[in-house]
Amino acid sequence: MTPPTPHLRLDREVLRRNADRLRARITALGPVLRPHVKTSKSPRVAEVLLGGAPGPITVSTLREAEVFADAGYDDVLYAVGIAPSKLDRVRALRERGVDLVVLLDSVEQAEAVAGQGVPALLEVDCDGHRGGVPPDSPAVLEIAGVLGGDLLRGVLTHAGESYFRYTPEELALAAEHERATAVRVAEALRAGGFPCPVVSVGSTPTAHAARDLTGVTEVRAGNYAFFDLVMAGVGVCGLADLALSVVVTVIGHRRERGWIMTDGGWMATSRDRGTGVQAVDQAYGVVALEDGGVVPDLLMVGASQEHGVLGMREGSARELPDFPVGTRLRVLPVHACATAAQHGEYHVVGGGRAPEVWARVTGW
Amino acid sequence: MTPPTPHLRLDREVLRRNADRLRARITALGPVLRPHVKTSKSPRVAEVLLGGAPGPITVSTLREAEVFADAGYDDVLYAVGIAPSKLDRVRALRERGVDLVVLLDSVEQAEAVAGQGVPALLEVDCDGHRGGVPPDSPAVLEIAGVLGGDLLRGVLTHAGESYFRYTPEELALAAEHERATAVRVAEALRAGGFPCPVVSVGSTPTAHAARDLTGVTEVRAGNYAFFDLVMAGVGVCGLADLALSVVVTVIGHRRERGWIMTDGGWMATSRDRGTGVQAVDQAYGVVALEDGGVVPDLLMVGASQEHGVLGMREGSARELPDFPVGTRLRVLPVHACATAAQHGEYHVVGGGRAPEVWARVTGW
Repeated sequence: MTPPTPHLRLDREVLRRNADRLRARITALGPVLRPHVKTSKSPRVAEVLLGGAPGPITVSTLREAEVFADAGYDDVLYAVGIAPSKLDRVRALRERGVDLVVLLDSVEQAEAVAGQGVPALLEVDCDGHRGGVPPDSPAVLEIAGVLGGDLLRGVLTHAGESYFRYTPEELALAAEHERATAVRVAEALRAGGFPCPVVSVGSTPTAHAARDLTGVTEVRAGNYAFFDLVMAGVGVCGLADLALSVVVTVIGHRRERGWIMTDGGWMATSRDRGTGVQAVDQAYGVVALEDGGVVPDLLMVGASQEHGVLGMREGSARELPDFPVGTRLRVLPVHACATAAQHGEYHVVGGGRAPEVWARVTGW
Repeated sequence: MTPPTPHLRLDREVLRRNADRLRARITALGPVLRPHVKTSKSPRVAEVLLGGAPGPITVSTLREAEVFADAGYDDVLYAVGIAPSKLDRVRALRERGVDLVVLLDSVEQAEAVAGQGVPALLEVDCDGHRGGVPPDSPAVLEIAGVLGGDLLRGVLTHAGESYFRYTPEELALAAEHERATAVRVAEALRAGGFPCPVVSVGSTPTAHAARDLTGVTEVRAGNYAFFDLVMAGVGVCGLADLALSVVVTVIGHRRERGWIMTDGGWMATSRDRGTGVQAVDQAYGVVALEDGGVVPDLLMVGASQEHGVLGMREGSARELPDFPVGTRLRVLPVHACATAAQHGEYHVVGGGRAPEVWARVTGW
């Protein structure tokens, strides 16, 4: 049965292609790929990313860690700075046999984590976009001293700035900066007597742009499973690489305003307007035929909770196409992580197999 | 047990006050209040809005209609233009005894709806913000003719423009325009031989600003259950009327940047930046103590998926407060409908009763 609209559609073939592309790339450069499952929140998707069986993953919530543990994933990095009140759940997972490693960037956290015997990575800030200690801060050795060499598994950094770089050369530089920062801190720790076996870097743009990963032991990336219009704007993928779309139905027209109304509003696409800062603003998404390609210049230009407004891109010389009430269309997401988060499941199609429904992890 | 962060907290006492305020107001003006449950998606919340028992409601999805039907709600308006493919589910609900009425604004929809014997309201556009036929369009009588007097229950309009009006006088004018437009179309239909018993208007701002509702039979509003920073910016409520907040934990500091990091990112607050077009931009939300009031000038200034960044309002002369790692804070939502949509349940506190968990309807 065709699911009611709006629903979240996942193209199995595109997912597999995106998965194979990055896995081959990172493997050739040397490190292990540790996919970030925050984008898909689905053990079924992770299985494709890892080539068919559980393997190392990154999670953004303990709920993800718990659900993936149930699915056989026992090598897990929780890549959000640990709140001491969450250590009970971390220990419960470790006692189940999951090698769950946490992240921290302060002495306060290190004291709490060391007190519970939980291994951790030290978060290092390479470009000022989130948490992490500055790479040359005395805090690096101070925190390591609190944790001790056994619990300090290594260092982690994330090139948040790479989402705002737009040429292959700039992206390669961001990747090299990310690598060099992490390796430099790891070497400083080793010089201080801490073995620091793990050097973890990653973001979807830098993972695709890195030319050399010497000294890096693992690469994290999440968005690449599905890609989206922000990543297309950064230049890391093309529109044909977008694995997700929101299927909507035309419910009306305001022809005098140049609008087609649909039953997919921000509840189905999210409020993310991430291409607003890029050279080409894609509003709430690019529109495609249900079982075909992109409709030239047709965008989702407006959103209320359960209404989408489609209209022509500003400056387009094309006429608004005439899709009758009942027509199904697809909206390609601006930000796949945010769009997927609005849905409880994927409607998986393509790849010459019967459609399936894959569940997503929800909550924290 | 205190729930892990981030979680969605609902203050039972504030909800009750907001509910009582609007119910008393609309009852005094004459019409029936038909709360829009799209904001809360919770039969428990709707019960408070309706004074303790099921009553007339507005829904934004058929899934809401189905779940509320299970909870005893049998007088339901589905206020999103009907897609003909959804009429099977509409009929199934009607056959269960639910008086489910749909919405439409085209001859195509009217033909599909009439063919299934489903009653409908005609959507009229009063201010150019969404769907609906223009009030003086010949389509009004044409669509009525297709439906017939028995199935045409009446007219509906929604003053979307009222979200962009900021003085009591402007809001009262928007309310009067909404009322007058709906009544005028209803009278034209009656003159054409259609009884048109229902005249439905509403939005949270106009419902609170209307001074006269002559000719209106029912008022719809949803957001008022919880209110939010957008509504405070419009002037319909104060910060003390906000019933929802997202409870987060401090996980770090970047003092050199003026940042406090938390475990609540856009996954917990949504990406809605609705106050960005208002006089006072509240970024991703105003920050309050866990069990206390607003922290002056502290905002959630940035969001990644599971990281929140708190910082001082631009231009503030105050110093960044020093909350240690582990401190719980609350973020007051920019847009309650969008923030609530990121969560599967409410953690209900206050009112001198034990905390409870109330579920939300998810999906379509």
